[in-house]
Amino acid sequence: MVIFRRLLGDVLRSQRMRKGLTLRQVSADARVSLGYISEVERGQKEASSELLASICMALDVPLSEILSEVSDAVALEEAALAMQLESMEKSLDLADEARPGGDVVASAA
Amino acid sequence: MVIFRRLLGDVLRSQRMRKGLTLRQVSADARVSLGYISEVERGQKEASSELLASICMALDVPLSEILSEVSDAVALEEAALAMQLESMEKSLDLADEARPGGDVVASAA
Repeated sequence: MVIFRRLLGDVLRSQRMRKGLTLRQVSADARVSLGYISEVERGQKEASSELLASICMALDVPLSEILSEVSDAVALEEAALAMQLESMEKSLDLADEARPGGDVVASAA
Repeated sequence: MVIFRRLLGDVLRSQRMRKGLTLRQVSADARVSLGYISEVERGQKEASSELLASICMALDVPLSEILSEVSDAVALEEAALAMQLESMEKSLDLADEARPGGDVVASAA
């Protein structure tokens, strides 16, 4: 399961770094407590839509750009999860083939 | 100020409609109360990241696709807001030019 707030936090943090801003500056500009913004960046708290808009204004980055970056990060994670799942299914298939008459043994038990 | 939850709600609703699903079906599949999903679609409640993931699974649409659509909708709204602001500024400039010696009157008051 891909968790939106975690990737949103990553994108917000990397945008802040790119702008050379401190948490304290963004907190003051966005009028949000330092602790809250810090938790949002670490993906530990959901950001309300109003807070998200304030942070975007403080970072001087359009919300659409933030969301587009989050969408890209989510897509990468979805692809990685799909590959993981596929290789797990392959391993199960191989284990099944390697077991001689596996189903018969199972039904005899 | 562009409010994320409103545009997210619009996108979730339109995706549900496209799939021909009822609120009740999504609510059952995502194991979320009907009232909550309905409020999320109307942009009245923030969806937690876990709820968002469950709704996406129930809709069988990747989260990245939902976010990409929301990003596009937000970009349109940002552009509309920028145009509105520009035309307001132009009107103010015109009003300023039309007022003879506006600044002098203001400072004399």
